[in-house]
Amino acid sequence: MTQARMVQIEKDILSKNDQYAATNRERFLERGILALNLVSSPGSGKTTLLTRTIDDLRDAVDVSVIEGDQQTANDAERIRAAGAKSIQINTGKGCHLDGHMVGHAFESLDPAEGSVLFIENVGNLVCPAAFDLGEAHKVAILSVTEGEDKPLKYPDMFHAATLMILNKVDLLPYLEFDVEKCIAYAKRVNPRIQILQVSATKGDGMESWYRWIQATREMTFAGRDVPLRGAS
Amino acid sequence: MTQARMVQIEKDILSKNDQYAATNRERFLERGILALNLVSSPGSGKTTLLTRTIDDLRDAVDVSVIEGDQQTANDAERIRAAGAKSIQINTGKGCHLDGHMVGHAFESLDPAEGSVLFIENVGNLVCPAAFDLGEAHKVAILSVTEGEDKPLKYPDMFHAATLMILNKVDLLPYLEFDVEKCIAYAKRVNPRIQILQVSATKGDGMESWYRWIQATREMTFAGRDVPLRGAS
Repeated sequence: MTQARMVQIEKDILSKNDQYAATNRERFLERGILALNLVSSPGSGKTTLLTRTIDDLRDAVDVSVIEGDQQTANDAERIRAAGAKSIQINTGKGCHLDGHMVGHAFESLDPAEGSVLFIENVGNLVCPAAFDLGEAHKVAILSVTEGEDKPLKYPDMFHAATLMILNKVDLLPYLEFDVEKCIAYAKRVNPRIQILQVSATKGDGMESWYRWIQATREMTFAGRDVPLRGAS
Repeated sequence: MTQARMVQIEKDILSKNDQYAATNRERFLERGILALNLVSSPGSGKTTLLTRTIDDLRDAVDVSVIEGDQQTANDAERIRAAGAKSIQINTGKGCHLDGHMVGHAFESLDPAEGSVLFIENVGNLVCPAAFDLGEAHKVAILSVTEGEDKPLKYPDMFHAATLMILNKVDLLPYLEFDVEKCIAYAKRVNPRIQILQVSATKGDGMESWYRWIQATREMTFAGRDVPLRGAS
Protein backbone atom coordinates (compact mmCIF):
# COMPACT_ATOMS: atom_id res chain seq x y z
CA MET A 1 0.00 0.00 0.00
CA THR A 2 1.41 3.40 -0.92
CA GLN A 3 1.93 6.15 1.64
CA ALA A 4 -0.51 8.38 -0.30
CA ARG A 5 -3.22 5.73 -0.15
CA MET A 6 -2.68 5.27 3.60
CA VAL A 7 -3.01 9.01 4.17
CA GLN A 8 -6.22 9.05 2.11
CA ILE A 9 -7.71 6.18 4.14
CA GLU A 10 -6.84 7.99 7.37
CA LYS A 11 -8.53 11.14 6.07
CA ASP A 12 -11.67 9.18 5.15
CA ILE A 13 -11.91 7.61 8.60
CA LEU A 14 -11.43 10.92 10.38
CA SER A 15 -13.89 12.79 8.17
CA LYS A 16 -16.54 10.11 8.74
CA ASN A 17 -15.86 10.35 12.47
CA ASP A 18 -16.22 14.13 12.37
CA GLN A 19 -19.73 13.78 10.92
CA TYR A 20 -20.83 11.54 13.79
CA ALA A 21 -19.15 13.87 16.28
CA ALA A 22 -20.99 16.89 14.84
CA THR A 23 -24.33 15.10 15.28
CA ASN A 24 -23.44 14.21 18.87
CA ARG A 25 -22.42 17.81 19.57
CA GLU A 26 -25.78 19.12 18.30
CA ARG A 27 -27.67 16.69 20.49
CA PHE A 28 -25.63 17.56 23.58
CA LEU A 29 -26.24 21.28 23.01
CA GLU A 30 -29.95 20.86 22.31
CA ARG A 31 -30.40 19.16 25.65
CA GLY A 32 -28.06 21.40 27.65
CA ILE A 33 -25.72 18.52 28.40
CA LEU A 34 -22.09 19.34 29.10
CA ALA A 35 -20.04 16.49 27.61
CA LEU A 36 -16.43 16.11 28.78
CA ASN A 37 -14.04 13.63 27.15
CA LEU A 38 -11.59 12.32 29.77
CA VAL A 39 -8.31 11.17 28.23
CA SER A 40 -5.15 9.81 29.83
CA SER A 41 -2.72 6.92 30.13
CA PRO A 42 -4.08 3.70 31.63
CA GLY A 43 -4.19 3.94 35.41
CA SER A 44 -4.04 7.73 35.81
CA GLY A 45 -7.07 7.58 38.09
CA LYS A 46 -9.92 8.66 35.78
CA THR A 47 -12.51 6.32 37.31
CA THR A 48 -11.58 7.25 40.87
CA LEU A 49 -11.85 10.93 39.91
CA LEU A 50 -15.33 10.22 38.53
CA THR A 51 -16.64 8.17 41.46
CA ARG A 52 -15.58 10.90 43.90
CA THR A 53 -17.07 13.59 41.63
CA ILE A 54 -20.40 11.73 41.42
CA ASP A 55 -20.47 11.40 45.17
CA ASP A 56 -19.63 15.03 45.87
CA LEU A 57 -21.91 16.55 43.19
CA ARG A 58 -24.89 14.34 44.01
CA ASP A 59 -27.01 17.29 45.16
CA ALA A 60 -25.72 19.76 42.58
CA VAL A 61 -26.06 18.13 39.18
CA ASP A 62 -27.10 14.95 37.37
CA VAL A 63 -24.11 12.99 36.15
CA SER A 64 -23.88 10.08 33.73
CA VAL A 65 -20.89 8.29 32.25
CA ILE A 66 -19.96 6.54 29.01
CA GLU A 67 -17.08 4.16 29.79
CA GLY A 68 -14.56 2.99 27.17
CA ASP A 69 -12.20 0.04 27.64
CA GLN A 70 -10.78 -2.70 25.46
CA GLN A 71 -12.31 -5.28 27.79
CA THR A 72 -14.27 -5.61 31.05
CA ALA A 73 -17.24 -3.70 32.42
CA ASN A 74 -15.39 -2.96 35.69
CA ASP A 75 -15.49 0.80 35.31
CA ALA A 76 -19.18 1.08 34.44
CA GLU A 77 -19.89 -1.09 37.49
CA ARG A 78 -17.81 1.20 39.71
CA ILE A 79 -19.69 4.22 38.34
CA ARG A 80 -23.09 2.61 38.91
CA ALA A 81 -22.04 1.63 42.44
CA ALA A 82 -21.23 5.32 43.02
CA GLY A 83 -24.80 6.12 42.01
CA ALA A 84 -24.70 7.40 38.43
CA LYS A 85 -26.08 6.02 35.17
CA SER A 86 -23.35 4.41 33.09
CA ILE A 87 -22.86 2.39 29.94
CA GLN A 88 -19.74 0.44 29.00
CA ILE A 89 -18.31 0.33 25.49
CA ASN A 90 -15.78 -2.46 24.88
CA THR A 91 -13.56 -1.55 21.94
CA GLY A 92 -12.04 -5.04 21.57
CA LYS A 93 -8.92 -4.49 19.45
CA GLY A 94 -9.69 -0.76 19.26
CA CYS A 95 -7.52 1.83 20.95
CA HIS A 96 -9.97 4.74 21.24
CA LEU A 97 -13.66 5.65 21.28
CA ASP A 98 -15.11 7.18 18.13
CA GLY A 99 -18.07 9.41 17.36
CA HIS A 100 -20.24 6.55 16.14
CA MET A 101 -19.82 4.43 19.29
CA VAL A 102 -20.54 7.42 21.50
CA GLY A 103 -23.67 8.34 19.52
CA HIS A 104 -25.13 4.87 20.11
CA ALA A 105 -24.16 4.85 23.79
CA PHE A 106 -25.73 8.28 24.23
CA GLU A 107 -29.04 7.02 22.86
CA SER A 108 -29.09 4.06 25.26
CA LEU A 109 -27.94 6.10 28.24
CA ASP A 110 -30.38 8.95 27.58
CA PRO A 111 -28.91 11.47 30.08
CA ALA A 112 -31.15 14.08 31.71
CA GLU A 113 -31.46 17.60 30.31
CA GLY A 114 -28.97 19.97 31.90
CA SER A 115 -26.77 17.13 33.14
CA VAL A 116 -23.06 16.47 32.88
CA LEU A 117 -21.95 13.58 30.67
CA PHE A 118 -18.45 12.26 31.25
CA ILE A 119 -16.94 10.12 28.50
CA GLU A 120 -14.07 8.10 29.93
CA ASN A 121 -11.94 7.21 26.93
CA VAL A 122 -9.70 4.15 26.55
CA GLY A 123 -6.45 4.72 28.48
CA ASN A 124 -4.16 5.87 25.68
CA LEU A 125 -2.29 9.15 25.28
CA VAL A 126 -2.02 8.86 21.49
CA CYS A 127 -5.00 7.74 19.42
CA PRO A 128 -7.93 9.38 21.27
CA ALA A 129 -6.39 12.80 20.51
CA ALA A 130 -7.41 12.51 16.85
CA PHE A 131 -11.03 11.44 17.41
CA ASP A 132 -13.60 14.12 18.16
CA LEU A 133 -16.56 12.61 20.05
CA GLY A 134 -18.67 15.76 20.00
CA GLU A 135 -17.54 16.74 23.51
CA ALA A 136 -17.40 20.35 24.70
CA HIS A 137 -13.86 19.80 25.99
CA LYS A 138 -11.16 17.21 26.33
CA VAL A 139 -9.82 16.90 29.87
CA ALA A 140 -6.38 15.26 30.09
CA ILE A 141 -5.56 13.54 33.36
CA LEU A 142 -1.86 13.09 34.11
CA SER A 143 -0.81 11.35 37.31
CA VAL A 144 2.40 12.55 38.91
CA THR A 145 3.74 8.98 38.97
CA GLU A 146 4.05 9.14 35.17
CA GLY A 147 6.85 11.74 35.05
CA GLU A 148 6.78 15.42 34.14
CA ASP A 149 7.86 14.99 30.50
CA LYS A 150 4.63 13.42 29.20
CA PRO A 151 3.19 16.63 27.64
CA LEU A 152 6.31 16.91 25.47
CA LYS A 153 6.30 13.24 24.48
CA TYR A 154 2.57 13.11 23.67
CA PRO A 155 2.01 16.69 22.47
CA ASP A 156 -1.11 16.05 20.37
CA MET A 157 -3.13 15.07 23.43
CA PHE A 158 -2.08 18.00 25.59
CA HIS A 159 -2.53 20.34 22.64
CA ALA A 160 -6.10 19.07 22.19
CA ALA A 161 -7.06 19.36 25.88
CA THR A 162 -8.68 22.41 27.47
CA LEU A 163 -7.82 21.29 30.98
CA MET A 164 -5.02 19.18 32.42
CA ILE A 165 -5.71 17.57 35.79
CA LEU A 166 -2.50 16.68 37.58
CA ASN A 167 -3.66 13.76 39.73
CA LYS A 168 -2.21 11.75 42.65
CA VAL A 169 -0.48 14.82 44.15
CA ASP A 170 -0.66 13.02 47.52
CA LEU A 171 2.21 10.84 46.23
CA LEU A 172 4.55 13.79 45.49
CA PRO A 173 6.54 13.33 48.76
CA TYR A 174 7.58 9.84 47.58
CA LEU A 175 8.50 10.75 44.00
CA GLU A 176 10.96 12.88 42.08
CA PHE A 177 8.44 14.89 40.11
CA ASP A 178 8.90 18.57 39.33
CA VAL A 179 5.43 20.13 39.23
CA GLU A 180 6.64 23.49 37.88
CA LYS A 181 8.53 21.77 35.08
CA CYS A 182 5.48 19.67 34.15
CA ILE A 183 3.30 22.79 33.97
CA ALA A 184 5.91 24.57 31.83
CA TYR A 185 6.03 21.58 29.44
CA ALA A 186 2.22 21.48 29.16
CA LYS A 187 2.14 25.20 28.38
CA ARG A 188 4.88 24.80 25.81
CA VAL A 189 2.66 22.50 23.72
CA ASN A 190 -0.56 24.37 24.60
CA PRO A 191 -0.15 27.92 25.95
CA ARG A 192 -3.87 28.17 26.77
CA ILE A 193 -4.16 24.93 28.73
CA GLN A 194 -5.76 25.23 32.19
CA ILE A 195 -4.24 23.17 35.00
CA LEU A 196 -5.59 21.82 38.28
CA GLN A 197 -3.70 19.79 40.89
CA VAL A 198 -5.78 17.17 42.68
CA SER A 199 -5.72 13.92 44.60
CA ALA A 200 -8.85 12.01 43.67
CA THR A 201 -8.22 9.45 46.41
CA LYS A 202 -7.54 11.96 49.24
CA GLY A 203 -9.74 14.82 48.02
CA ASP A 204 -7.13 17.60 47.66
CA GLY A 205 -8.08 20.16 45.02
CA MET A 206 -11.42 18.54 44.13
CA GLU A 207 -13.37 21.72 44.92
CA SER A 208 -11.48 23.55 42.14
CA TRP A 209 -12.47 20.80 39.73
CA TYR A 210 -16.14 21.18 40.69
CA ARG A 211 -15.91 24.95 40.25
CA TRP A 212 -14.36 24.40 36.83
CA ILE A 213 -17.24 22.10 35.84
CA GLN A 214 -19.90 24.56 37.02
CA ALA A 215 -18.21 27.57 35.39
CA THR A 216 -17.85 25.61 32.15
CA ARG A 217 -21.55 24.64 32.20
CA GLU A 218 -22.52 28.25 32.65
CA MET A 219 -20.24 29.42 29.84
CA THR A 220 -21.35 26.67 27.48
CA PHE A 221 -25.05 27.32 27.97
CA ALA A 222 -24.95 31.07 28.69
CA GLY A 223 -28.30 32.69 27.97
CA ARG A 224 -29.85 29.29 27.28
CA ASP A 225 -32.93 28.10 29.06
CA VAL A 226 -31.55 24.86 30.43
CA PRO A 227 -31.98 23.62 33.96
CA LEU A 228 -28.74 24.30 35.82
CA ARG A 229 -29.57 22.74 39.14
CA GLY A 230 -27.01 23.94 41.65
CA ALA A 231 -25.09 25.95 39.07
CA SER A 232 -25.42 29.28 40.83
CA MET B 1 -15.87 2.64 3.87
CA THR B 2 -17.34 -0.80 4.54
CA GLN B 3 -16.40 -2.87 7.58
CA ALA B 4 -15.10 -5.61 5.27
CA ARG B 5 -12.83 -3.18 3.45
CA MET B 6 -11.48 -1.84 6.77
CA VAL B 7 -10.69 -5.36 7.95
CA GLN B 8 -8.90 -6.08 4.66
CA ILE B 9 -6.79 -2.92 4.97
CA GLU B 10 -5.86 -3.86 8.53
CA LYS B 11 -4.83 -7.33 7.36
CA ASP B 12 -2.68 -5.83 4.58
CA ILE B 13 -0.90 -3.52 7.01
CA LEU B 14 -0.23 -6.31 9.51
CA SER B 15 0.95 -8.78 6.87
CA LYS B 16 3.37 -6.21 5.44
CA ASN B 17 4.60 -5.54 8.97
CA ASP B 18 5.10 -9.25 9.59
CA GLN B 19 7.41 -9.44 6.56
CA TYR B 20 9.63 -6.68 7.94
CA ALA B 21 9.54 -8.28 11.39
CA ALA B 22 10.60 -11.66 9.97
CA THR B 23 13.62 -10.02 8.30
CA ASN B 24 14.55 -8.29 11.55
CA ARG B 25 14.24 -11.57 13.46
CA GLU B 26 16.61 -13.32 11.05
CA ARG B 27 19.18 -10.57 11.41
CA PHE B 28 18.97 -10.60 15.21
CA LEU B 29 19.43 -14.38 15.28
CA GLU B 30 22.33 -14.35 12.78
CA ARG B 31 24.23 -11.97 14.99
CA GLY B 32 23.31 -13.55 18.33
CA ILE B 33 21.46 -10.43 19.45
CA LEU B 34 18.69 -10.84 22.01
CA ALA B 35 16.00 -8.29 21.10
CA LEU B 36 13.42 -7.43 23.75
CA ASN B 37 10.39 -5.23 22.98
CA LEU B 38 9.47 -3.21 26.09
CA VAL B 39 5.81 -2.23 26.13
CA SER B 40 3.74 -0.36 28.72
CA SER B 41 1.61 2.67 29.52
CA PRO B 42 3.33 6.05 29.37
CA GLY B 43 5.31 6.69 32.54
CA SER B 44 5.60 3.11 33.80
CA GLY B 45 9.36 3.58 34.20
CA LYS B 46 10.75 1.83 31.10
CA THR B 47 13.61 4.29 30.58
CA THR B 48 14.61 4.25 34.26
CA LEU B 49 14.58 0.44 34.16
CA LEU B 50 16.89 0.60 31.14
CA THR B 51 19.35 3.19 32.49
CA ARG B 52 19.80 1.14 35.67
CA THR B 53 20.13 -2.07 33.65
CA ILE B 54 22.81 -0.52 31.43
CA ASP B 55 24.70 0.66 34.48
CA ASP B 56 24.52 -2.65 36.31
CA LEU B 57 25.28 -4.89 33.29
CA ARG B 58 28.15 -2.73 32.01
CA ASP B 59 30.76 -5.48 32.60
CA ALA B 60 28.51 -8.39 31.65
CA VAL B 61 27.03 -7.61 28.26
CA ASP B 62 26.85 -5.00 25.49
CA VAL B 63 23.52 -3.19 25.47
CA SER B 64 21.97 -0.89 22.89
CA VAL B 65 18.53 0.68 22.69
CA ILE B 66 16.03 1.70 20.02
CA GLU B 67 13.77 4.37 21.54
CA GLY B 68 10.24 5.08 20.30
CA ASP B 69 8.24 8.21 21.17
CA GLN B 70 5.78 10.46 19.39
CA GLN B 71 8.09 13.42 20.01
CA THR B 72 11.39 14.35 21.73
CA ALA B 73 14.76 12.61 21.87
CA ASN B 74 14.78 12.77 25.69
CA ASP B 75 14.90 9.01 26.18
CA ALA B 76 17.70 8.32 23.70
CA GLU B 77 19.69 11.07 25.42
CA ARG B 78 19.11 9.47 28.84
CA ILE B 79 20.25 6.11 27.46
CA ARG B 80 23.39 7.59 25.91
CA ALA B 81 24.15 9.42 29.16
CA ALA B 82 23.95 6.01 30.88
CA GLY B 83 26.62 4.79 28.48
CA ALA B 84 24.83 2.72 25.81
CA LYS B 85 24.34 3.24 22.09
CA SER B 86 20.86 4.48 21.30
CA ILE B 87 18.78 5.76 18.42
CA GLN B 88 15.48 7.64 18.73
CA ILE B 89 12.50 7.05 16.44
CA ASN B 90 9.85 9.78 16.52
CA THR B 91 6.54 8.37 15.34
CA GLY B 92 4.82 11.77 15.00
CA LYS B 93 1.11 10.93 14.86
CA GLY B 94 1.92 7.22 15.17
CA CYS B 95 1.00 5.22 18.25
CA HIS B 96 3.43 2.30 17.95
CA LEU B 97 6.71 1.19 16.39
CA ASP B 98 6.54 -1.10 13.36
CA GLY B 99 8.87 -3.63 11.79
CA HIS B 100 9.99 -1.27 9.05
CA MET B 101 11.03 1.55 11.42
CA VAL B 102 12.91 -0.91 13.63
CA GLY B 103 14.72 -2.43 10.63
CA HIS B 104 16.09 0.97 9.62
CA ALA B 105 17.01 1.90 13.19
CA PHE B 106 18.81 -1.44 13.58
CA GLU B 107 20.95 -0.73 10.52
CA SER B 108 21.98 2.69 11.83
CA LEU B 109 22.57 1.45 15.37
CA ASP B 110 24.55 -1.61 14.28
CA PRO B 111 24.63 -3.39 17.67
CA ALA B 112 27.55 -5.69 18.56
CA GLU B 113 27.35 -9.46 18.03
CA GLY B 114 26.09 -11.24 21.12
CA SER B 115 24.61 -8.07 22.59
CA VAL B 116 21.21 -7.26 24.04
CA LEU B 117 19.00 -4.88 22.05
CA PHE B 118 16.16 -3.24 23.96
CA ILE B 119 13.37 -1.71 21.89
CA GLU B 120 11.46 0.76 24.04
CA ASN B 121 8.09 1.08 22.35
CA VAL B 122 5.78 4.11 22.42
CA GLY B 123 3.94 4.21 25.77
CA ASN B 124 0.63 2.58 24.81
CA LEU B 125 -1.00 -0.59 26.13
CA VAL B 126 -3.12 -1.17 23.01
CA CYS B 127 -1.60 -0.73 19.54
CA PRO B 128 1.94 -2.07 20.05
CA ALA B 129 0.43 -5.47 20.96
CA ALA B 130 -0.48 -6.08 17.30
CA PHE B 131 2.88 -5.15 15.75
CA ASP B 132 5.63 -7.74 15.76
CA LEU B 133 9.04 -6.02 15.54
CA GLY B 134 11.04 -9.24 15.20
CA GLU B 135 11.86 -9.32 18.92
CA ALA B 136 12.53 -12.53 20.83
CA HIS B 137 10.04 -11.48 23.52
CA LYS B 138 7.69 -8.71 24.53
CA VAL B 139 8.25 -7.53 28.09
CA ALA B 140 5.26 -5.67 29.57
CA ILE B 141 6.06 -3.19 32.34
CA LEU B 142 3.18 -2.35 34.68
CA SER B 143 3.74 0.12 37.49
CA VAL B 144 1.81 -0.47 40.70
CA THR B 145 0.46 3.10 40.58
CA GLU B 146 -1.68 2.09 37.56
CA GLY B 147 -3.99 -0.29 39.42
CA GLU B 148 -4.17 -4.08 39.48
CA ASP B 149 -6.90 -4.42 36.84
CA LYS B 150 -4.82 -3.41 33.80
CA PRO B 151 -4.15 -6.97 32.53
CA LEU B 152 -7.92 -7.54 32.30
CA LYS B 153 -8.60 -4.20 30.61
CA TYR B 154 -5.78 -4.50 28.07
CA PRO B 155 -5.67 -8.27 27.63
CA ASP B 156 -4.01 -8.34 24.17
CA MET B 157 -0.83 -6.81 25.52
CA PHE B 158 -0.51 -9.09 28.53
CA HIS B 159 -1.42 -12.06 26.37
CA ALA B 160 1.39 -11.15 23.94
CA ALA B 161 4.04 -10.66 26.65
CA THR B 162 6.42 -13.36 27.90
CA LEU B 163 7.33 -11.42 31.02
CA MET B 164 5.46 -8.86 33.11
CA ILE B 165 7.62 -6.57 35.23
CA LEU B 166 5.66 -5.10 38.11
CA ASN B 167 7.55 -1.83 38.67
CA LYS B 168 7.62 0.87 41.38
CA VAL B 169 7.02 -1.65 44.20
CA ASP B 170 8.73 0.85 46.54
CA LEU B 171 5.46 2.86 46.37
CA LEU B 172 3.26 -0.03 47.56
CA PRO B 173 3.09 1.28 51.18
CA TYR B 174 1.37 4.46 49.91
CA LEU B 175 -1.12 2.81 47.55
CA GLU B 176 -4.06 0.47 47.62
CA PHE B 177 -2.71 -2.09 45.19
CA ASP B 178 -3.27 -5.81 45.59
CA VAL B 179 -0.20 -7.58 44.17
CA GLU B 180 -1.71 -11.06 44.39
CA LYS B 181 -4.85 -9.93 42.58
CA CYS B 182 -2.79 -8.29 39.83
CA ILE B 183 -0.78 -11.49 39.33
CA ALA B 184 -3.99 -13.54 39.21
CA TYR B 185 -5.45 -11.19 36.57
CA ALA B 186 -2.28 -11.39 34.45
CA LYS B 187 -2.36 -15.19 34.61
CA ARG B 188 -6.03 -15.23 33.70
CA VAL B 189 -5.27 -13.60 30.31
CA ASN B 190 -1.93 -15.41 29.91
CA PRO B 191 -1.40 -18.52 32.06
CA ARG B 192 2.25 -18.82 30.99
CA ILE B 193 3.28 -15.25 31.75
CA GLN B 194 6.36 -14.85 33.95
CA ILE B 195 6.30 -12.10 36.58
CA LEU B 196 8.99 -10.11 38.36
CA GLN B 197 8.52 -7.44 41.02
CA VAL B 198 11.05 -4.60 40.89
CA SER B 199 11.73 -1.01 41.79
CA ALA B 200 13.89 0.44 39.04
CA THR B 201 14.53 3.60 41.07
CA LYS B 202 15.48 1.86 44.35
CA GLY B 203 16.96 -1.33 42.91
CA ASP B 204 14.69 -3.96 44.52
CA GLY B 205 14.38 -7.10 42.42
CA MET B 206 16.74 -5.95 39.67
CA GLU B 207 19.03 -8.97 40.11
CA SER B 208 16.13 -11.28 39.14
CA TRP B 209 15.64 -9.22 35.98
CA TYR B 210 19.33 -9.59 35.09
CA ARG B 211 19.16 -13.34 35.71
CA TRP B 212 16.08 -13.50 33.46
CA ILE B 213 17.97 -11.67 30.67
CA GLN B 214 21.01 -13.95 30.93
CA ALA B 215 18.91 -17.13 31.08
CA THR B 216 16.90 -15.96 28.07
CA ARG B 217 20.07 -15.24 26.07
CA GLU B 218 21.37 -18.70 26.82
CA MET B 219 18.08 -20.35 25.85
CA THR B 220 17.72 -18.28 22.69
CA PHE B 221 21.20 -19.03 21.45
CA ALA B 222 21.71 -22.48 22.98
CA GLY B 223 24.38 -24.43 21.12
CA ARG B 224 25.18 -21.40 18.97
CA ASP B 225 28.68 -20.05 18.73
CA VAL B 226 27.90 -16.49 19.80
CA PRO B 227 29.94 -14.52 22.28
CA LEU B 228 28.06 -14.53 25.59
CA ARG B 229 30.36 -12.29 27.59
CA GLY B 230 29.47 -12.67 31.24
CA ALA B 231 26.63 -15.07 30.54
CA SER B 232 27.97 -17.89 32.66
